Amino acid sequence: MSGTGTASAGAGNFCPLLRLKTTSRIPKLGFLKLNHSLITFRSLQIKASDSSNHLRLNVAHDVTLSNANGHATGSGTNLKQLSTIGNSTNIQWHNCSVLKDDRHRLLDQKGCVIWITGLSGSGKSTVACALSRILHQWGKLTYVLDGDNLRHGLNKDLGFKAQDRAENIRRFGEVGKLFADAGVICIASLISPYRRDRDACRAMLANGDFIEVFMDVPLHVCEARDPKGLYKLARAGKIKGFTGIDDPYETPIHSEIVLKHGEPCASSPVEMAEKIAVYLENNGYCSVEVIN
Amino acid sequence: MSGTGTASAGAGNFCPLLRLKTTSRIPKLGFLKLNHSLITFRSLQIKASDSSNHLRLNVAHDVTLSNANGHATGSGTNLKQLSTIGNSTNIQWHNCSVLKDDRHRLLDQKGCVIWITGLSGSGKSTVACALSRILHQWGKLTYVLDGDNLRHGLNKDLGFKAQDRAENIRRFGEVGKLFADAGVICIASLISPYRRDRDACRAMLANGDFIEVFMDVPLHVCEARDPKGLYKLARAGKIKGFTGIDDPYETPIHSEIVLKHGEPCASSPVEMAEKIAVYLENNGYCSVEVIN
Repeated sequence: MSGTGTASAGAGNFCPLLRLKTTSRIPKLGFLKLNHSLITFRSLQIKASDSSNHLRLNVAHDVTLSNANGHATGSGTNLKQLSTIGNSTNIQWHNCSVLKDDRHRLLDQKGCVIWITGLSGSGKSTVACALSRILHQWGKLTYVLDGDNLRHGLNKDLGFKAQDRAENIRRFGEVGKLFADAGVICIASLISPYRRDRDACRAMLANGDFIEVFMDVPLHVCEARDPKGLYKLARAGKIKGFTGIDDPYETPIHSEIVLKHGEPCASSPVEMAEKIAVYLENNGYCSVEVIN
Repeated sequence: MSGTGTASAGAGNFCPLLRLKTTSRIPKLGFLKLNHSLITFRSLQIKASDSSNHLRLNVAHDVTLSNANGHATGSGTNLKQLSTIGNSTNIQWHNCSVLKDDRHRLLDQKGCVIWITGLSGSGKSTVACALSRILHQWGKLTYVLDGDNLRHGLNKDLGFKAQDRAENIRRFGEVGKLFADAGVICIASLISPYRRDRDACRAMLANGDFIEVFMDVPLHVCEARDPKGLYKLARAGKIKGFTGIDDPYETPIHSEIVLKHGEPCASSPVEMAEKIAVYLENNGYCSVEVIN
């Protein structure tokens, strides 16, 4: 098996820097240096790695790049209009020619945000990780955004006041949107107690790409679990504004998936995760086409 | 060709909800419902899609999940210690059993952040998109974080004061870190004029995973291009604190890659992007192993 590459139009000189770079065992497609002309090529890559047990065959489409005027058409289109968004003035949206659909085809999955909401101790993070594990076994790329984990980094400047909580959730939504756009199945796991905040995140995403999962677990069950000991602290008055104790949790009304505590066939975190995985497959987010 | 799945230990009853879900043309691995026992299975998935011209064969490792105690070991480990990070109190890091290395193997690439810095008009976004296109052709998953684009969403609450600029860049670093952790080759394209801000982002990532690319283009060249007309506005005093005019750009000292204006073999955006792609391959971020 070998890799081939042909330049079918406007062949010019190879750039020595790039032509001589051959780390692989068979020659790979080189780079063509052409000024003010078109390059068309077809690439074939066959890769295998014993360590990962993955074999992938990519036959790329014919690709045409133009570097006329020193700028590649394959490198994006500027919309010339400057705009003001919030506090950001004179900014310009920059489109890139590798689009969400291209990444969808590359990964054979559709990016989306699974938004797992529920009380502390309802099992959000556990289900998020079980789902991640199942989808990984299906060969799907997932990423878990955990409420506590993001507070170690992106959201570490935020506390738990109402305004900070809203900003925390807004950033989750915005980051989830980026991941979904990147083609990743993003699993967001956070209490997100207020309906308006969750709905604002839903509104950021394309129709269907925000999949709300409600962990419908009674407060007394969560409190009995109390995995972090926080309910005990809240009951003792050592934590103020704790969701479910002295701050409300607004139950979702139109969740795509409800994982009800004690429900048959969805009683363990793995079964709950399976239910979400089935939803994703049924709705085309990770369909599996099989050869006859 | 067919898919097979066997449960080798502790076989129990199938959950009807999941067992009956067969959308594919051949039977797929079902889900096993087992309480307080181990599940071991091997999955084989063969997928093809005419529309994308991608064929992928995944032979998964044997997988063992335990749902003893109602919690999957495959679903993460709680570190019991609560901590305070910045303004976030009583938070707990939640590890997930699907790790960065697993995603690395799945994607056959290593997540990292390509940080493209330079003056407005130096070609950052154009090179970012050209790089994205090249790597996509190699079958690699990339995502471009563009300075202006993020100001349409995650960073729309930020302006251009020194404090806001620093926060803008901090969030870029944090989001880039998440993408790198997800296994994505993340291409961040933003002026990022101050050395301390760039270095703070470098410090967020593992050694080597932050790859600084300096667009070394003289101010007069950028100003002559003036793609957004911003230099003209800045010279007229209509924009204050514009990098290169009345706000400094601190030239990088130890960039991994310098793309110097007018350099032989790196004069067009596509050639510049190729230089970055070669660096990534040479440094193991998207190595291509080829079958003999």
